[in-house]
Amino acid sequence: MQTIGFIGTGVMGGSMAGHLQNAGHPLCLFTRTRAKAQPLLDRGAAWADSPAQLAARCETVFTMVGYPSDVEEVYFGDCGLLTGMRRGALLVDMTTSQPALAERIAAEAERLGGEALDAPVSGGDKGAREATLSIMAGGSRHAYEKALPLLRLMGREIVYHGPAGSGQHCKLCNQIAIAANMVGVCEALAYARRTGLDPERVLRSISGGAAGSWSLANLAPRMLAGDFAPGFYVKHFVKDLGLALEAARTMRLDLPGLSLGERMYRELRDGGEGDSGTQALIKRYA
Amino acid sequence: MQTIGFIGTGVMGGSMAGHLQNAGHPLCLFTRTRAKAQPLLDRGAAWADSPAQLAARCETVFTMVGYPSDVEEVYFGDCGLLTGMRRGALLVDMTTSQPALAERIAAEAERLGGEALDAPVSGGDKGAREATLSIMAGGSRHAYEKALPLLRLMGREIVYHGPAGSGQHCKLCNQIAIAANMVGVCEALAYARRTGLDPERVLRSISGGAAGSWSLANLAPRMLAGDFAPGFYVKHFVKDLGLALEAARTMRLDLPGLSLGERMYRELRDGGEGDSGTQALIKRYA
Repeated sequence: MQTIGFIGTGVMGGSMAGHLQNAGHPLCLFTRTRAKAQPLLDRGAAWADSPAQLAARCETVFTMVGYPSDVEEVYFGDCGLLTGMRRGALLVDMTTSQPALAERIAAEAERLGGEALDAPVSGGDKGAREATLSIMAGGSRHAYEKALPLLRLMGREIVYHGPAGSGQHCKLCNQIAIAANMVGVCEALAYARRTGLDPERVLRSISGGAAGSWSLANLAPRMLAGDFAPGFYVKHFVKDLGLALEAARTMRLDLPGLSLGERMYRELRDGGEGDSGTQALIKRYA
Repeated sequence: MQTIGFIGTGVMGGSMAGHLQNAGHPLCLFTRTRAKAQPLLDRGAAWADSPAQLAARCETVFTMVGYPSDVEEVYFGDCGLLTGMRRGALLVDMTTSQPALAERIAAEAERLGGEALDAPVSGGDKGAREATLSIMAGGSRHAYEKALPLLRLMGREIVYHGPAGSGQHCKLCNQIAIAANMVGVCEALAYARRTGLDPERVLRSISGGAAGSWSLANLAPRMLAGDFAPGFYVKHFVKDLGLALEAARTMRLDLPGLSLGERMYRELRDGGEGDSGTQALIKRYA
């Protein structure tokens, strides 16, 4: 089987690369903090000293890093993937990143005789671990078909959304819906507390109906328990909402709910909650 | 079995009263538009010419009307329930109404030797028809226990939330959570459309994960289909959000998401969409 490159083996990427390895694919890894790749290296994965060196050895490369600036460096840096990329290779960025950057990567990969796909995910660490991620793909249909058998090892709901950047745009839709809903969940709980209601009983009354949501079912109980351990980091959510807001502004699309959510999460991060989970938004209402 | 009074036999109330009748309870009805009571009258229910006359004939009375002003008239009007109320009677208002008004009704009922309960519902016309409503009760524990066997004929998740007004406060929590989420759902779809994504495919990608919600699953498809038939009226939602905002302001609780949602829905109503379903909010982003 072909050797698959994987860059970024953190909480999400580590599990995702593990599924490729479990399916029998030889892996070649690069990650900023080598210790994070150690479990996969111990199980036989090879190591590359830079994205360029990794690209020279693999026909398919996945990346799952942090911020668009990391994506930019991994792809366009001096020792970046695009420097070492083979002709005919496929590069798949699964980071939630800037749609315009995904377009730039795809154009450059094509110029070099290869292909690129943007394929950000939702489903969190649990989805990564259980290979039940939702994967939102953008790029050429050909690149998508080529990546599909490998994506199926990592996710369950895999949807092709159109040309380069479309996967990123879809992921930003996801974040837009979450942000406003998180504001609503927090405000419902804040209102309940202020009126002297028992918030647990309020959740019993409202979770099963038209107010029901994943966040209400999964994050509201953590808010009430004072459990702010990160399922998804505030700092990463701020990044995503900033990308969505930037894209919306570029398109002259007025999204007041997104503006509000982005501002509230940014203030939360700036107040020192960047490493908390997104449920920490409830602290704003304390 | 005791005769039960029911005031307000519209879409919701008609189904709810029907369940009481089906369980064998003789009904006595009053409603502003007599035609709306006709199906129940045809099946043997009695008619009263005013709330006061109805109250004189029933130990338990349910009300399910439109606005707090209607509740005020039905209870405190010249021919209101409290004028004709028997000693020991129980009055149950299931309208979504003002928490402070629920407190006033309970105090006055008690002064007259009876009891009152606020017990607004969620679950819509479907929940009313199928007797699967979520019922949120406030009032004395004694009144709640007394009403419970009858509430069980109309709902599934029935929760006692505390003193008079608590049921209304819980229902407003429900509406607060819905409003912000509706903004998020609309903005996710608006963003998808503007970027040229296929919104149906976007829903496939995001409905099953952390962005998932009742509104995304049930109302987003209607938005995409251009189906604005009312499951829940914009005009009623504006009323509920106004009540929540008023209560929050009284408590000096700053809820920016609620403020935004209330303003957007109010503008939608003022723009002529009062009789549309709440999913018509998407029109704001057209």
